[in-house]
Amino acid sequence: MPAQTNIAEVGEVGLIRRIAEIVNVRTEDASLRDNLIAGIGDDTAVFKPTPGKTALLTTDSFIEGVHFDLTFTSFQHLGWKAIAANLSDIAAMGGAPRYAVIAISIPKKISLEMVEEFYRGAMAACKKYSCLIVGGDTTASIGNMAISVALTGEADEQKILYRKGAQPGDLICVTGHLGASHAGLKILQREKQRFLESANPVEFQPNLAPFAIALEKHLMPKPRFDISALLTSKVTTHCAIDISDGLASEVHRICEASNTGAKIYEHNLPLDSNTQQIAGEFSEPPSKYALYGGEEYELLFAMTDQEFEKLESLTSDVTIIGRITPQSEGIELVLENGEPEALPFAGWDHFTSINNE
Amino acid sequence: MPAQTNIAEVGEVGLIRRIAEIVNVRTEDASLRDNLIAGIGDDTAVFKPTPGKTALLTTDSFIEGVHFDLTFTSFQHLGWKAIAANLSDIAAMGGAPRYAVIAISIPKKISLEMVEEFYRGAMAACKKYSCLIVGGDTTASIGNMAISVALTGEADEQKILYRKGAQPGDLICVTGHLGASHAGLKILQREKQRFLESANPVEFQPNLAPFAIALEKHLMPKPRFDISALLTSKVTTHCAIDISDGLASEVHRICEASNTGAKIYEHNLPLDSNTQQIAGEFSEPPSKYALYGGEEYELLFAMTDQEFEKLESLTSDVTIIGRITPQSEGIELVLENGEPEALPFAGWDHFTSINNE
Repeated sequence: MPAQTNIAEVGEVGLIRRIAEIVNVRTEDASLRDNLIAGIGDDTAVFKPTPGKTALLTTDSFIEGVHFDLTFTSFQHLGWKAIAANLSDIAAMGGAPRYAVIAISIPKKISLEMVEEFYRGAMAACKKYSCLIVGGDTTASIGNMAISVALTGEADEQKILYRKGAQPGDLICVTGHLGASHAGLKILQREKQRFLESANPVEFQPNLAPFAIALEKHLMPKPRFDISALLTSKVTTHCAIDISDGLASEVHRICEASNTGAKIYEHNLPLDSNTQQIAGEFSEPPSKYALYGGEEYELLFAMTDQEFEKLESLTSDVTIIGRITPQSEGIELVLENGEPEALPFAGWDHFTSINNE
Repeated sequence: MPAQTNIAEVGEVGLIRRIAEIVNVRTEDASLRDNLIAGIGDDTAVFKPTPGKTALLTTDSFIEGVHFDLTFTSFQHLGWKAIAANLSDIAAMGGAPRYAVIAISIPKKISLEMVEEFYRGAMAACKKYSCLIVGGDTTASIGNMAISVALTGEADEQKILYRKGAQPGDLICVTGHLGASHAGLKILQREKQRFLESANPVEFQPNLAPFAIALEKHLMPKPRFDISALLTSKVTTHCAIDISDGLASEVHRICEASNTGAKIYEHNLPLDSNTQQIAGEFSEPPSKYALYGGEEYELLFAMTDQEFEKLESLTSDVTIIGRITPQSEGIELVLENGEPEALPFAGWDHFTSINNE
């Protein structure tokens, strides 16, 4: 590890200067660049909204010990993920990201270089998905590290994808594969435990290579702007949400907002082979990871059969997992054996999960 | 104390429902109300920017043990202050606040009722200064409580008050009185200590009444939209900043952004009698509180003598504390005895302050 600098040596002013050097990179996106009037270095960021566009605003926090474990999360991954989680909310609304501010609370154990790595990871996500970090707040913490990102976006008002709008008979669809993020987390936690129990920690090598797909999904999630662009411009989509707390919770949220029921077919859940292998190693059903694992950042949406046919001709990365039903029919999971049961409103709940540990 | 509910009993969904009930109050501000398309309950908030206006975006965090001590801060005050600190940044830019999101990280010791009190306090500030809470993120914390607010605002591009723009010869001015917030904090810390050391804690009564002005300044700061409205519409103001980390730091920030020096006159610092009394009790010079105490949320600005004359005819709540000088003359504090000395870039620095404790 290179030399580490105590942040107290440079103070808040020195820290902000180093952060500004990393984030004030000239963006190639002319619209973002030309419409930013003031970034880091004033009381607020100042920018020109695009005339005629509707504004989006979201915030997501990442708390050490709750959302991430620094023993197996690099600061670059952490920075990427903090931005990507917020970007995913913008994608789920059918918008385009614009400007971000980051509030970071830093305990004494974190060096200046670690904070720089965090911002490099955040910037990598910003560059890939065209947004800019334009301000923030840096504070000390006497406890754990905490990060809150707030992100603005823009959308055409008529194209915004809300949670409400699903209609009985609609197909329920998801992007990509499900369960991989949770599978990746299980592997990281297992290897940490193996390390802690190893007789020779200096020579310990975690066994990670066979699980690269799941690990990347957990550490470096990709917001699905590729699919949201199709959902807003090529087909008619009734509603959309991103899967951050697990599929089951998000199905409930769409049904609640749309006043509908839903039937989800367990055998249709898209699982990649890495996730199936990992679930197998833990002797757990992979569908459990898909239904109740969090931090997927895939999209869940509903549309008619006709619209799905159109969508399917444009991408192969979407899967039908069920159908919207009348509200009176409830929210059901049809098991692989064909038996229906109530789909619980369960998934990653911060309060019950943490407090029950 | 009324019955307290463990948040795990209601879960994140129940918590968000209770928060939404508090913040989804119908605002009397027609522009805020009519331009909000979606608030809490979707992946992002959605709103229409006012055509022709420039957007502002800021974030400020409040961390337990760093910014606040729950043994002497009520949750309503905490909510007020978290919003007010962000509002102050908007006021310092000459803007009007619009929509806020709150990320709150909640340890197990905090009950549902305490979180509700927090949001009631935040809403009180929102109502008074016309902004709306339109979303957020609730997470558990295994450590301390942490709050990050992100706030959007709007301004006329030509009227925005930046930190840069001060010119040699300009008067340096502040709103209100200085040092009171730090004085209030000193009293709260002293009374906490007295309580901890008291032989009979049950009957202990803190001695707070004589210090009401300073305590209110610390616990319920008021963003200076009254004065920023004058600065943007009635007079020409060269630059402005809000005093959040202490006067001395903010003078340095204005000078750095404007490429100027400054001369601040110690005997001109506006101190209220409560602050003077408190500093006296601690045998400290009250000017130290004014120069280096944080969380004032007053405005610091620069303008010509002619413009100040106009301003003075409109308000009596502004004070001249010095003059902008050429950069080569440095940043000086002229002591009460007439001797100049370099004004240190000192004040509330999270990293040096916390790590030196």
